[in-house]
Amino acid sequence: MEFVQLQKHDGIATLTLARGKVNAINGPVVDQMTERLKSLEHDPEANSIVLTGAGKFFSFGFDVPEFLSFEKPQFDRFLTAFTDLHTYLFLYPKPVVAALNGHAVAGGCMLALACDYRVMVMGKGKISLNELTFGASVFAGITEMLRFAVGSANAAKVLYSGSMYSAEEAKTIGLIDEAATEQDLMDAASKMASSLGSKYPPAFTGVKSLLRKTIAEDIMRRQADSIWEFVDIWYSEHTWANLKNIKIA
Amino acid sequence: MEFVQLQKHDGIATLTLARGKVNAINGPVVDQMTERLKSLEHDPEANSIVLTGAGKFFSFGFDVPEFLSFEKPQFDRFLTAFTDLHTYLFLYPKPVVAALNGHAVAGGCMLALACDYRVMVMGKGKISLNELTFGASVFAGITEMLRFAVGSANAAKVLYSGSMYSAEEAKTIGLIDEAATEQDLMDAASKMASSLGSKYPPAFTGVKSLLRKTIAEDIMRRQADSIWEFVDIWYSEHTWANLKNIKIA
Amino acid sequence: MEFVQLQKHDGIATLTLARGKVNAINGPVVDQMTERLKSLEHDPEANSIVLTGAGKFFSFGFDVPEFLSFEKPQFDRFLTAFTDLHTYLFLYPKPVVAALNGHAVAGGCMLALACDYRVMVMGKGKISLNELTFGASVFAGITEMLRFAVGSANAAKVLYSGSMYSAEEAKTIGLIDEAATEQDLMDAASKMASSLGSKYPPAFTGVKSLLRKTIAEDIMRRQADSIWEFVDIWYSEHTWANLKNIKIA
Repeated sequence: MEFVQLQKHDGIATLTLARGKVNAINGPVVDQMTERLKSLEHDPEANSIVLTGAGKFFSFGFDVPEFLSFEKPQFDRFLTAFTDLHTYLFLYPKPVVAALNGHAVAGGCMLALACDYRVMVMGKGKISLNELTFGASVFAGITEMLRFAVGSANAAKVLYSGSMYSAEEAKTIGLIDEAATEQDLMDAASKMASSLGSKYPPAFTGVKSLLRKTIAEDIMRRQADSIWEFVDIWYSEHTWANLKNIKIA
Repeated sequence: MEFVQLQKHDGIATLTLARGKVNAINGPVVDQMTERLKSLEHDPEANSIVLTGAGKFFSFGFDVPEFLSFEKPQFDRFLTAFTDLHTYLFLYPKPVVAALNGHAVAGGCMLALACDYRVMVMGKGKISLNELTFGASVFAGITEMLRFAVGSANAAKVLYSGSMYSAEEAKTIGLIDEAATEQDLMDAASKMASSLGSKYPPAFTGVKSLLRKTIAEDIMRRQADSIWEFVDIWYSEHTWANLKNIKIA
Repeated sequence: MEFVQLQKHDGIATLTLARGKVNAINGPVVDQMTERLKSLEHDPEANSIVLTGAGKFFSFGFDVPEFLSFEKPQFDRFLTAFTDLHTYLFLYPKPVVAALNGHAVAGGCMLALACDYRVMVMGKGKISLNELTFGASVFAGITEMLRFAVGSANAAKVLYSGSMYSAEEAKTIGLIDEAATEQDLMDAASKMASSLGSKYPPAFTGVKSLLRKTIAEDIMRRQADSIWEFVDIWYSEHTWANLKNIKIA
């Protein structure tokens, strides 16, 4: 199954998450996205990337129902692959624009935060890191990329509250960069992707790396520990009971 | 004497600074607050903490008149205990909400900055890190927790100016999170304390630690040196002359 | 030739960039500014520094036409001296206020960002880090001082877009602290310089160092590598062709 669709047009490679109704993230999604991105790194037809979702959701995050059948080591392997993708996306040498066509929640919000620019549809989706609301923790990569986007104080507000932010609210605190109508969303994303993609690639990559590399190194030092702590909490009686009540597909 | 009063109600433990007219901080205050916090860490009746002050002040900071009788090593021991408490509070595993019922100045502001949320009364108190105005420096823990709350640029403004901010002004730059009327102050603090206290504790602690632990480690590496520099300046002829003119009790 | 003029008045030392029409920065400018600053460090008549430009520009940045005759090692030596000055200015023990009398672009903006306070004339100059627009990268010191001033997210916006910001726009994102009319510019700068210069010097230096020293250490660790990458891109065919089209004098 193809869960990450690729289209190329005018120097922009668009990656579309397409898995079920909510674009739930599981192992194959992570593998396919990683492969797509690796193949695009040296593709001369891709000056920049747009990341979006099929249907009404960008992504509602992890495929929790599937993960309920996982033992700890298997879930740990998934989380390692997902966080590796997340850090790889944060440092991706080409510009990446997130076109948030609907809800971008938990893992979906994480992917969006790794991008260089986020434009979000108004009046439909919400963006949220709602892990605390169902008793889960997060990873080192989330807190640091969130801090990059909104600063430490707003990062605490976003995570502690688990609030679902509209595009307008998300723009106010810096969680997204631009709010657009449904009709204008992809044009707005393409416009920024074209603009960033027109820069001299070694210079763009150099600037991006200066802004992000030491943060990524800090994330990588702390990620494995944060995954272990995440897994311990995930499999606790309290959180497991909440997860079993989550019904998305 | 009991300088840090404890009340428990509905899962919230309220710690009230109560020492003289301005809740001046000295060794016993630090010791009692440290002990109270340690005992509450594993108290099942305390899901969260509210920190406030008795009377018209939250705290005007260090008990300068008392410290004028201290020799350097004695003052250094106090500062070590105070900054240890400060870092401990910053990393405290349960949510801590500051209910600023009046002036929160210097050491009083420091304690507030270590909390997870600050709500401040309007029209009465001011919040300020006014150390530079009487010729004192600060500690590594102050600059980093202030940076966490307001960012680097505003941190410099707050410290360089030594301004006394009203609740409304403080909210604008992020020094506090919420401004409340005198009547609503404790309700607002309780509401946030209840909300944060209702999260699954290991998940809340995990998120808080991811946001704050590397900052605290950086503070701890630099704190002792910053205390020595603080002490050298404190006992300089210039600053000592200013301190002798401070009359609070 | 004297490219960095010095005047002292009422405890304020004013350094004025004065080289050609746009105050283009080259080796002698860097050497003279470094010498001036070193001599002022222990000058009892200089409580604070104001940095400004002669004529209609603060500085349009590096003297690109001159550097087109440089071989890599010679350019690398210039960049090392410039970035050393930049970091030295960022940590300068006395307060430094930038009075931006006109365009502050690229290297000119860098010098401004190292200061403690930036006031800029309205209606005339623009401030910009426009390196990406002509295919150049930047240095570790730029990204970190820019991050200090405006936060990570705005730092990316400023660098990715290469936008030319008016004083009003620059104030909104934190790139400058104050916008002033042409008539009021030097008074506003003097007022802040006097205020910061009136603080007890060891306490001011202590606070400034706590806010900036670990950032400067991080910059120094990464600066040499970032210079090498900058030089590689600067001498690339693409960027060199752009540089030859830049005509400023």
